[in-house]
Amino acid sequence: MTNKDMGFQLTILGSSSATPAHGRHPSSQVLRCNNDYFLIDCGEGTQMQLHRYGIKRTLINHIFISHLHGDHFYGLIGLISSFNLLKRSSPLHIYAAADLEKMIQVQLELTDCKLVFELHFHTILMEHAIIFESKELQIETIPLSHRIACLGFVVREKLGERKINKTQTDRYQIPVTALAAIKKGEDYTNTKGTVIGNSLLTTDPNPVKSFAYISDTLFLPEIVPHIQGVDLLYHEATFGNDRILRAFETFHSTAEQAATIAKNASVKQLIIGHFSAKYSSDDLPILLAEAKAVFENTNLAEEGLLIEI
Amino acid sequence: MTNKDMGFQLTILGSSSATPAHGRHPSSQVLRCNNDYFLIDCGEGTQMQLHRYGIKRTLINHIFISHLHGDHFYGLIGLISSFNLLKRSSPLHIYAAADLEKMIQVQLELTDCKLVFELHFHTILMEHAIIFESKELQIETIPLSHRIACLGFVVREKLGERKINKTQTDRYQIPVTALAAIKKGEDYTNTKGTVIGNSLLTTDPNPVKSFAYISDTLFLPEIVPHIQGVDLLYHEATFGNDRILRAFETFHSTAEQAATIAKNASVKQLIIGHFSAKYSSDDLPILLAEAKAVFENTNLAEEGLLIEI
Repeated sequence: MTNKDMGFQLTILGSSSATPAHGRHPSSQVLRCNNDYFLIDCGEGTQMQLHRYGIKRTLINHIFISHLHGDHFYGLIGLISSFNLLKRSSPLHIYAAADLEKMIQVQLELTDCKLVFELHFHTILMEHAIIFESKELQIETIPLSHRIACLGFVVREKLGERKINKTQTDRYQIPVTALAAIKKGEDYTNTKGTVIGNSLLTTDPNPVKSFAYISDTLFLPEIVPHIQGVDLLYHEATFGNDRILRAFETFHSTAEQAATIAKNASVKQLIIGHFSAKYSSDDLPILLAEAKAVFENTNLAEEGLLIEI
Repeated sequence: MTNKDMGFQLTILGSSSATPAHGRHPSSQVLRCNNDYFLIDCGEGTQMQLHRYGIKRTLINHIFISHLHGDHFYGLIGLISSFNLLKRSSPLHIYAAADLEKMIQVQLELTDCKLVFELHFHTILMEHAIIFESKELQIETIPLSHRIACLGFVVREKLGERKINKTQTDRYQIPVTALAAIKKGEDYTNTKGTVIGNSLLTTDPNPVKSFAYISDTLFLPEIVPHIQGVDLLYHEATFGNDRILRAFETFHSTAEQAATIAKNASVKQLIIGHFSAKYSSDDLPILLAEAKAVFENTNLAEEGLLIEI
């Protein structure tokens, strides 16, 4: 396994829905993509959960908040305050609905907290959009259907460069100066005018990895094309089939509905979470069974669970 | 031990100063006084800590916030939100500086949270005042010396009624109708005009219990008269003697200073807490030793510690 392969991991920090119960914590997870750590939702206690599971707070430069229900962001102000006390120097980027900035600013002002680092709020809207892009990956939003504006996030690695087949480039005496273009997929034309096809000189790049985070939502088949084939899908499953009406009324999904989305999108693996306080730890295997009946490769989110993608 | 005796208990929910570290949580503790549960400070994660230590959230009707640094109140909005989701019916009373209400209201408005229970904010000022009074006890404020307005709280049980000595009231043939006045300390005059002294008919009431919470403060000997002789003193001890200058600069106390206050006030027992992130669990025995050198009956606050008063 290369370093790059080792670097795409999801850690669950909270698996609870709005009322934390049974020792579960509100929503938060960290996606590690090589050297980048993306915090996705930040429920109350996230900074303590990061410590518990050995993730250094200061590695986080980007935080994505799916929607403005407290169980998805009440931990943010504490994390920002701690960053300040720790004299963070690198900028912090928060991607969320506009009102979050108001709430954070009011608290910073009234607690007389002057930030020593740059805090950038990026407003995200109820639309499909690429909201983050780096050399390695991009993150896009998916509008969901909840009681308030709510977004899912899809993280996709970009296809890397083609890999040089050294035996072949030696054989065809390709100069070093030509390799950059060949890695990008170009053919090589030698000094005699002979064209050497790229496929003779390279092999395919590493497969790209992808992760989708589907936060609070009613069962929403429209999202399927946007998460098609992702390696890992986290989908909320607040309720089981015993409370399907309640799921409908509160704009949440059941475990079976989450699995139906996973199946229709042909994802590789499904994690369900955001469990209602109605379910104790003993009840969760029922939700898991209901999901597995539709999509076998399903697991329950639980605090500290680390999934290699 | 009577039921009444059993009911005066302090549970530590958080022992950390502003930056939670080493698995410690920000400030919060619950004082049980018979059937009343008083939450004192409410750092991030308090509602999860209440669950962890088996204290039913809904028993809490009164919350006291010492000052508006986030590590003392960031857990409040989550607790209020959970009370709402649990369809709390009894009123909740919060005693804090006025700006806290603004911060909470902004968050409730922008998260579209309409409370189903009465939330009463009681503004507390930088002065000595009785801010809570019931049949059984009273709570008063003590101004402290921190970087922002900060208050300590002293909880004192009221002296109960005198106890009837049944052998004596039978002997003197005291009618039942006279007992209420005798319990209040009055003498009894019988039909012949003979006065029977109260001390013949009663014994002393149960001793009153008392607890003082001294939140973030510079070493402040002025508080001593106000906490004189309390059964239990919690005093912040953010630093050890190795960082006495840092304590001074940041308006905090050292363990030795906390113990000096305890000694001068002749309290019965001292708990120190609010430890800086600079100190790992391995370092805390040093702080404890520094305190014990001055005041022997000292213990370290730690999450889940329950102290019978």
